[in-house]
Amino acid sequence: MTDTETGSLVIIGGAEDKHGECRILRRLVEMAGGDRARMLILTAAAEEPGVVGATYRRVFGELGVAETFIIHVSDRAQANDPGLLSLLRHATGVFFTGGDQLRLTALLGGTTIDRALRQLHRRGAVIAGTSAGASAMSDTMIVGGHDDETATRNTVRLAPGMGWLTGVVVDQHFAQRGRIGRLLTALAQNPRVLAVGIDEDTAVEVGPAGELEVIGSGTVMVLDGSSCEHTNASEASSDQSLALTGVTLHVLPAGYRFIIDERLALPRKEAE
Amino acid sequence: MTDTETGSLVIIGGAEDKHGECRILRRLVEMAGGDRARMLILTAAAEEPGVVGATYRRVFGELGVAETFIIHVSDRAQANDPGLLSLLRHATGVFFTGGDQLRLTALLGGTTIDRALRQLHRRGAVIAGTSAGASAMSDTMIVGGHDDETATRNTVRLAPGMGWLTGVVVDQHFAQRGRIGRLLTALAQNPRVLAVGIDEDTAVEVGPAGELEVIGSGTVMVLDGSSCEHTNASEASSDQSLALTGVTLHVLPAGYRFIIDERLALPRKEAE
Repeated sequence: MTDTETGSLVIIGGAEDKHGECRILRRLVEMAGGDRARMLILTAAAEEPGVVGATYRRVFGELGVAETFIIHVSDRAQANDPGLLSLLRHATGVFFTGGDQLRLTALLGGTTIDRALRQLHRRGAVIAGTSAGASAMSDTMIVGGHDDETATRNTVRLAPGMGWLTGVVVDQHFAQRGRIGRLLTALAQNPRVLAVGIDEDTAVEVGPAGELEVIGSGTVMVLDGSSCEHTNASEASSDQSLALTGVTLHVLPAGYRFIIDERLALPRKEAE
Repeated sequence: MTDTETGSLVIIGGAEDKHGECRILRRLVEMAGGDRARMLILTAAAEEPGVVGATYRRVFGELGVAETFIIHVSDRAQANDPGLLSLLRHATGVFFTGGDQLRLTALLGGTTIDRALRQLHRRGAVIAGTSAGASAMSDTMIVGGHDDETATRNTVRLAPGMGWLTGVVVDQHFAQRGRIGRLLTALAQNPRVLAVGIDEDTAVEVGPAGELEVIGSGTVMVLDGSSCEHTNASEASSDQSLALTGVTLHVLPAGYRFIIDERLALPRKEAE
């Protein structure tokens, strides 16, 4: 995991509330310093960065953020522009929008911005991402696959992610798009990873010590392969149905926690 | 479970192959006696019993069944008609078609036909059901719910099933319709039950000793709540997100087995 100097992460399953209570984004702003928060919005993943950027600027403004910057890059040369560093330097929170997670990593991975963001995080800034921005948080990320389908190796495509969170594979829009098959397929290929499926309008907050806490209206499914007894992932052909036995499954709503290192699910601290 | 005199069950997740290899229906015919099989097709669940009955009559014919009878009942008086018993008496296999599982139990439950079918089963006839006919196999059956949705108690509606298989809740069209949420909701309300989600063109064959074996092209998900540590099912309101921790999950393709009493998943006997 990360050391205790670094900031937290907020990993959002997409379609978070932007008009009502805004429970997730409100919590993000609070973590980033509340009315002293300086939020950096990164729209590199988005198809329509202008629209997406403006939407989050509005919401963060309504939630009382002191300052909002938007950075959009559409090629790696821009992401290597040292002129952007002055914008980055004072951010207390970073927000990766949705879109295409592969664009995020292909455009930003290993660039000047990427390195600067990691420095920011080590100095305590909170790093958040929704939808594509959530997928890209893991070191191996899901880039595509089939929803609502029997799991085979073809069900999921993986690529190297941004690696803000190690040893974990994240999937988003989880219940809404019927994605347990593709998440199990990722898990079967190496049961060491923790598989985390996040519903829409739901997020996990990850503290520096690797404690997940659920926020929002849906649930987070945690699939722990450390108890796995058997899988056919290595011998099955890529279109053959998956076998996987003995996985431990947790369904966690808001307030529930999961300690990554101990593989331990914990109920809400007090009754609501 | 059942005692060792009784016949087997074949529980099919819907949309089983009826034109190609017909792996599931072929196996059913073999279990019912092959070219000496006498198959009884029960269309009570179906919206269009004529079409459905004719389809299965054709397939069973092509698979070499000696004789096929179709019984359709549309009210309980018909299901209590002792005249039907002569049709039933010599069947070696019984097939419940798809449709609406609630029609199946509301029309047949506790009638003369129902009692006669149980006698047949005790004398060794194989009992099969697909889709609605699969759901109705369990003692508590899923009659409806929401697909691809965060699990809450509203996600699933339950009713008393036909009870061919006790201690188990079955769901069908499982991966294809994103139904893990509704199956987990059923499980959370009593983790004692074994939750079994069957994909399309996939089935479990249940032997008299309570051993499940998977047939067909997809997978069967078995969710074992005996390891469950915590659920909020009793205190959560009906639209509040479900919590459920420590469930054991197995994904089983063709040839894999599960021993119900021992809660034990077993790989295929030999490599294919």
